[in-house]
Amino acid sequence: MAKLYIIKIGGSIIDDETKLSSFLKEFASIDEKKILVHGGGKMATRLAEKLGIKQQLVDGRRITDAETLKIVTMVYAGYINKNIVAQLQAANCNAFGLSGADGNAILSHKRENLKTDYGFAGDIDTINTGLVITLLENNFTPVFSPITHNLKGQLLNTNADTIAQELAKGLSGEFETTLIFTFEKSGVLSDAENEHSVIPDLNYFSYNKLKAEGKIFDGMIPKLDNAFAALKNGVSKVIIGKAENLKELIIGNSGTTIHNE
Amino acid sequence: MAKLYIIKIGGSIIDDETKLSSFLKEFASIDEKKILVHGGGKMATRLAEKLGIKQQLVDGRRITDAETLKIVTMVYAGYINKNIVAQLQAANCNAFGLSGADGNAILSHKRENLKTDYGFAGDIDTINTGLVITLLENNFTPVFSPITHNLKGQLLNTNADTIAQELAKGLSGEFETTLIFTFEKSGVLSDAENEHSVIPDLNYFSYNKLKAEGKIFDGMIPKLDNAFAALKNGVSKVIIGKAENLKELIIGNSGTTIHNE
Repeated sequence: MAKLYIIKIGGSIIDDETKLSSFLKEFASIDEKKILVHGGGKMATRLAEKLGIKQQLVDGRRITDAETLKIVTMVYAGYINKNIVAQLQAANCNAFGLSGADGNAILSHKRENLKTDYGFAGDIDTINTGLVITLLENNFTPVFSPITHNLKGQLLNTNADTIAQELAKGLSGEFETTLIFTFEKSGVLSDAENEHSVIPDLNYFSYNKLKAEGKIFDGMIPKLDNAFAALKNGVSKVIIGKAENLKELIIGNSGTTIHNE
Repeated sequence: MAKLYIIKIGGSIIDDETKLSSFLKEFASIDEKKILVHGGGKMATRLAEKLGIKQQLVDGRRITDAETLKIVTMVYAGYINKNIVAQLQAANCNAFGLSGADGNAILSHKRENLKTDYGFAGDIDTINTGLVITLLENNFTPVFSPITHNLKGQLLNTNADTIAQELAKGLSGEFETTLIFTFEKSGVLSDAENEHSVIPDLNYFSYNKLKAEGKIFDGMIPKLDNAFAALKNGVSKVIIGKAENLKELIIGNSGTTIHNE
């Protein structure tokens, strides 16, 4: 099976033009098939502030009201996505930007929650793996923005981590898939205060042992549970670390690599 | 040869939610292969106003400075493009939104003009017809926003009429291509003040005769010259009229149809 890298980047790298540019050059130089999934950044929040649109938060989660949906569609699917694609094209990578509406790539439904109305937040129903495989086989590099649709004309704001994970699960039957989540830390830390305490390898056994010993930071537990769920669904490995270290992450010299065994 | 319709819509329909929605349903119901090219609308101007970004005009032409480029990328390639795609998907049309950067679909260069610096305005160099044919043959309906790139990482604001025309020229070797320009008038009028004075048919001979008689409104001359240039380059016919009348335009019951003979 051909190798496939699915790499998710978030705000910490998107907001820094210099870091983003050097990350994109490293990403472009990956010889194997690859997909980039990007989240948002501070630009959407700043634009909302400038326009006087108040961001509502419930239990620390942002509510995507109609005005916020307009802003994230403009910023994520427009500004960020097209600038990333143009930079990758300049680096000789045949990037193709998509939202979940394009070619019906990602179908979702409006999150239903009896307690809280999250507004136009989308939970994924299906990934159109046929479409993504066609793009990859035609040597395109898909670049996904975290905007999906419900096939009834409604765009929905969707978690980029979940998009990356669902893509990885859906494509692991066709490719030997490595899923890379980048974030602001160097990897999974055994001491949240110490950047040098990266745990280089985790399997389900060692994870549960460390969790029982209280050595896994609470905030990492949902991310890691998702990583192990991806492995159960056929993904070869999951790597967590800093986008700045992409090349080192891939060869296992940086970050935390999560395996089955 | 299979038939292909390339349809350009502009601000007057994009700014009206109800009209746009009914236009998109008619567009979706075209059985033949089709491409939609959209311009912008008032949303970009309004957003610039709200953000206090002054729009510079030189001889009536807008200058795309760096801040304006950000806005048009957000609004055209993000908000408008993705909302059109989601609505077409809901109407059972497998729409796929693109900017010129995606898959290197449209390569352009920054307009050079010794007298005026138009800013980040792009003039088209090449259309990646191979990519567009691949999308059409895989039964996708491309939806182009008027943002292109220069393959050096720079996005550029590009005239949507020109994109539609260059697509039509580039694809006319592969498809029997009809190019439809929609605008706020019912067609080419022999009396600019009278909506009922639509000239139903024009060929090069009748066009030059009417032009000599002063019966062609000055503002239409560049549009018509472009239409005849498209015919010379293999496009089968060019139709000019109102987006609201799409079905009637296609069968020649509305608007002005421009033929070779």
